[in-house]
Amino acid sequence: MIELRSLALEADISNQKIQLRLLDQTLLPHVEKWILIETNEQMIEAIKSLRVRGAPLIGVAASLMVAQLAIENVSPQELLIKAQALYDARPTAVNLMICIDRMTKTIRENFSVQNVVDLAVQIFNEDVQLCEKMATNGAALINDGDRILTHCNTGGLATAGIGTALGVIRKAHEQGKKIHVYIDETRPLLQGGRLTAWELKKLNIPCTLITDNMAAHLMSLKKIDKAIVGSDRIAINGDFANKIGTYSVAVNCFYHQIPFYVAAPYTTVDTKCETGAQIPIEQRSAKEVLGVSGSFGDVQWAPEGIQVYNPAFDVTPAKLVSHWILDKAAYSKNEIEQGVLKLC
Amino acid sequence: MIELRSLALEADISNQKIQLRLLDQTLLPHVEKWILIETNEQMIEAIKSLRVRGAPLIGVAASLMVAQLAIENVSPQELLIKAQALYDARPTAVNLMICIDRMTKTIRENFSVQNVVDLAVQIFNEDVQLCEKMATNGAALINDGDRILTHCNTGGLATAGIGTALGVIRKAHEQGKKIHVYIDETRPLLQGGRLTAWELKKLNIPCTLITDNMAAHLMSLKKIDKAIVGSDRIAINGDFANKIGTYSVAVNCFYHQIPFYVAAPYTTVDTKCETGAQIPIEQRSAKEVLGVSGSFGDVQWAPEGIQVYNPAFDVTPAKLVSHWILDKAAYSKNEIEQGVLKLC
Repeated sequence: MIELRSLALEADISNQKIQLRLLDQTLLPHVEKWILIETNEQMIEAIKSLRVRGAPLIGVAASLMVAQLAIENVSPQELLIKAQALYDARPTAVNLMICIDRMTKTIRENFSVQNVVDLAVQIFNEDVQLCEKMATNGAALINDGDRILTHCNTGGLATAGIGTALGVIRKAHEQGKKIHVYIDETRPLLQGGRLTAWELKKLNIPCTLITDNMAAHLMSLKKIDKAIVGSDRIAINGDFANKIGTYSVAVNCFYHQIPFYVAAPYTTVDTKCETGAQIPIEQRSAKEVLGVSGSFGDVQWAPEGIQVYNPAFDVTPAKLVSHWILDKAAYSKNEIEQGVLKLC
Repeated sequence: MIELRSLALEADISNQKIQLRLLDQTLLPHVEKWILIETNEQMIEAIKSLRVRGAPLIGVAASLMVAQLAIENVSPQELLIKAQALYDARPTAVNLMICIDRMTKTIRENFSVQNVVDLAVQIFNEDVQLCEKMATNGAALINDGDRILTHCNTGGLATAGIGTALGVIRKAHEQGKKIHVYIDETRPLLQGGRLTAWELKKLNIPCTLITDNMAAHLMSLKKIDKAIVGSDRIAINGDFANKIGTYSVAVNCFYHQIPFYVAAPYTTVDTKCETGAQIPIEQRSAKEVLGVSGSFGDVQWAPEGIQVYNPAFDVTPAKLVSHWILDKAAYSKNEIEQGVLKLC
């Protein structure tokens, strides 16, 4: 069993001792550096800078942060303020908001250090189980010999478990299906080229790295059988937000009549959100598009002063999706239209 | 008048003195370094490594190289061998083959140093004029207020003149049309992010740099009115090869009902090529996808040993093209179907 974890918590409540550590994902794959998170501000910085990332994982990490603060005897009132700051760290992935909402409900209605810690640990463990269920539901859609395109990183680095879209891929591989994965490098932050490439190599799953703009060409050559991506927020009509570039993959799959799947746990479904138009899209720093940063430092290739547009996410409409792979089941377009996501 | 030239020739035939210099495009935009080309091997290396690039320009540069060799009194027989080596330097852009074919015809049938030099200079000057004509034909398709997507670099750095697709954009801007250009950065070699950004900034044309995977998202937001690209080879049925990622732009334009134009001189039309399926696609080094190189050196962000696919070009079928902007005229789909390209 290969572990691909990027979050570690050691807690001893009775002695008020806690250690919350993150694998700094901005330095991967060349440097594997674990950083100790001691303050709420450090966690917020880590979320904003994508040292910890992936919609499910930032929800889990923020919950564990609240637990750490509770263990350190931060008052319930102060906990709520700090939880709100975590809630506001990134705007698109709803898992963060849903997890923090659960934590603050316990702080408000049923506060004890033990209860807060128990809930955070429950959120962590639950995410592990949700990944397993999605993987099983999704792997049933994968055939022996499938060549699968994926975008961004949705594996052990993006969740507390084996991942969402990448969990499906991993499960299909473990079932003995001979699959091949094409990895979109996923500019600007290269979660595919840095993180998914690193994970699939560790997992020994056959794969090929491409630049994002090569996917359509591969489809025209009939070298892609399916595409699977994760999500940061799913509206109840099935529209969903995911890493920038996902929409282009979906349009290209639609044009080439290639099945396009989204895999996400119920914690990614925003039951208050009717359509994708209501999902806020995070705009990020121009620097990310002007060049690249990593363990090697900062590199800029674009000329100084050039204007940049840098949305971190885009929205894919339900009509371009073949199946929604959730923890409960893999839903068809019909089921989505009938409103199954309202019950998530 | 802003000059954006990347090729310079000073020749004094009677004294057998010649200086052929290239602006090293691999170092742009941060370093503007002119390199002296003294041998055929240096020119071939410069073409293969994209120090000199752009389908029209490599045809011109290779022709000037043959002229330089002629001035240096290389024998006609040896000239033909060296011309063949230039011909073979890159496989996709047909301009290189067409220009070298013209040079070798003169060497074979009508050799004198003067004739060889005259033809190379004629090829250079002709390219300048072809750019002007394309620009005029294409600018007629651009409306005031258009927001135009472009891919790769097709300007003064890619031709001997003002460019192909970027020449059209420049002309429309000079005509006073208030346009805005969205520049695909064009991974892996970043001709958009490094070169087109640099050119448009020098030309003071309003523009925004994006990663390739953002173009579809912008289209969904109705922020793109038109897309214009260049070409490395056009088949007589209107299919064409261009920088990898062009096909994805074309599919996305088709899906969003956005006009998609290709601009190229007649020297890019391969009248021996019936469809895009016959165009050879150059495969390049994995290193380009694993990271990035530039004036800052080499950076690799992908894990060691990951498999890579790196086609330098893709083929866009005629059915996705709205207009073919050539030097003679801008052709509609109907005209292409009637076979106008056979007469190029």
